[in-house]
Amino acid sequence: MISLSKIAGICGVSIATVSKALRDKPGVSPDIRERVQSVARQHNYRPNRLVHALQKGRSMTIGILCSHFGEEFSGNIIDGILEVLTHAHYNALITSWERNIQENNQVLRSFLEHRVDGILMFPPASYPTGSYLEELLAFSNPIVVVDQTWPGCDFDFFGSQDAEGAFTLTEHLITLGHKDIANIHYSHSSTGAARLKGFQKAMIRHGIAVHEKWLREIRVYGSSEPHTLATELLSAHNRPTAIMAFNDLVALQVMAAATDLGIRVPEQLSVTGFADLSFAHNIRPRLTTISQDPASIGRKAAARLLASIKNRDEDSLPGKRHIERLPVELIVRGSSAERPA
Amino acid sequence: MISLSKIAGICGVSIATVSKALRDKPGVSPDIRERVQSVARQHNYRPNRLVHALQKGRSMTIGILCSHFGEEFSGNIIDGILEVLTHAHYNALITSWERNIQENNQVLRSFLEHRVDGILMFPPASYPTGSYLEELLAFSNPIVVVDQTWPGCDFDFFGSQDAEGAFTLTEHLITLGHKDIANIHYSHSSTGAARLKGFQKAMIRHGIAVHEKWLREIRVYGSSEPHTLATELLSAHNRPTAIMAFNDLVALQVMAAATDLGIRVPEQLSVTGFADLSFAHNIRPRLTTISQDPASIGRKAAARLLASIKNRDEDSLPGKRHIERLPVELIVRGSSAERPA
Repeated sequence: MISLSKIAGICGVSIATVSKALRDKPGVSPDIRERVQSVARQHNYRPNRLVHALQKGRSMTIGILCSHFGEEFSGNIIDGILEVLTHAHYNALITSWERNIQENNQVLRSFLEHRVDGILMFPPASYPTGSYLEELLAFSNPIVVVDQTWPGCDFDFFGSQDAEGAFTLTEHLITLGHKDIANIHYSHSSTGAARLKGFQKAMIRHGIAVHEKWLREIRVYGSSEPHTLATELLSAHNRPTAIMAFNDLVALQVMAAATDLGIRVPEQLSVTGFADLSFAHNIRPRLTTISQDPASIGRKAAARLLASIKNRDEDSLPGKRHIERLPVELIVRGSSAERPA
Repeated sequence: MISLSKIAGICGVSIATVSKALRDKPGVSPDIRERVQSVARQHNYRPNRLVHALQKGRSMTIGILCSHFGEEFSGNIIDGILEVLTHAHYNALITSWERNIQENNQVLRSFLEHRVDGILMFPPASYPTGSYLEELLAFSNPIVVVDQTWPGCDFDFFGSQDAEGAFTLTEHLITLGHKDIANIHYSHSSTGAARLKGFQKAMIRHGIAVHEKWLREIRVYGSSEPHTLATELLSAHNRPTAIMAFNDLVALQVMAAATDLGIRVPEQLSVTGFADLSFAHNIRPRLTTISQDPASIGRKAAARLLASIKNRDEDSLPGKRHIERLPVELIVRGSSAERPA
């Protein structure tokens, strides 16, 4: 890119004049201002954000901390984040929790080196480790946590009404006459724990016994374990008439396990998911699920972070910790039906 | 974060001494060096990359330019990119082509402001517009393009053997006895155009006529158009016995359209995808597809970019443009079978 001194050379003025002209400061004649700005435009000059960052103590950069980028749900949160950041002329640095652990780096290394003004973080699949938590607590700028949280988390948080969603989903199955409902959960995560609680609460509310043996826990997220767990549940003499799955991806494996055993969905088995990923309405039968709003989670979390940064800059007192769980919606489709006679 | 002057205050030495001690430069006694480094560690001090960037003209930062983050395939490329960047202690700035267009920003605004050392870019779903291309050509550091390319693209490129994959997939169907093969393609994209060519080449090679009316083009990517196109193909008096889909997501809609019409896959219709996304082996019937290697694409593209940056720094002559299409693999599963009698 062209430098200030080159622009100065082309226009036959001093660097100080170029700098003033580009920032629309006084002390430059209209003619020269116009000429400098035109040369800058022509050569695609952009102010150096790094200089600005050093002078103002603000990098205008946010760090986004994620474990895996290859997931539709977290990707949609990132799209929402970028919408707000781009509009506010903030930039986004990304790093992977997992990659830094593998490299024995500090997780926040690149964010600290770049003096990011704040962090938007996706917690790792289970809960953050001790040393990672220490890094987060030592970070002096605002942090907002998205989607998942952890016990004792003291940062602002934006997620979904997981417990409420699971409660509604369970009542949907109960209304269809189901009592023998199994649940393949992932309660290592905060969303998984909340969904399991919502399920249990609805069962208790309707006076229906929860079979402990029908609560099956996923231990390795992203593996084929859900297929195995569903096969076990469905091969037993006494099998459930409905299976609630931690999310849509797990539900897909449950439907596959049923098909593999010759059990028809929804005639012999109802299956539900959570998230409403794009495949959910494209599979057959279409998946009954809870739709979440990841783009809004991202937008709200980013807006909150920018507000907190502004607050700090103005030395305002920090507000109370903000926790927001966005509403979810029951989407009834073909994978759930009346309990078989 | 603690500043150099605060460390100097705590240790009772000058800022220059702190700076030397932290960089292991001579002129500092072992005792003081140890004390300064210990205080810095204790307060989680990180060298300011911005200062380094200004002094050395290297920001140690790469820009990743993507349109949508909510896609498994591009997310997996990003995971591969981050693996290499993290290992090399490079940082990654992200921006969204689409968001910048919406905001009437220059697409490369944040990258230029941060003086990124290079760019890894995913082209937009169709081809880059004129003004976007101008921005790319005006960027003076290396650019590597991933996954998709465009006519006349002059940058290094890493993608997949799309034409070869489609050729293999077509031969797989031909071997199963299929002649009446339709193709729902997305030839607005370079991968889509290559896959269509691979299909046509295999058909010609085996002396099988390509029915023009069975070549159906997707116009709006990510919509429900593939379901409509498949329904049209399958409702006609003369219907194909196999449908090749642009990718797995399109194949899912083709399978749904078949199911909705009461046409059984694979007994009455074979369906194939492309990508081998995680749902492909979890649906029933499992999807016959071509597996690509997005993480390797990301790793190789990032490694190439870092090598080009190093070359520039050393004033080596730029190498020839590098184009690499990574091998793909045919994955035969349950959605393809012998042509019905």
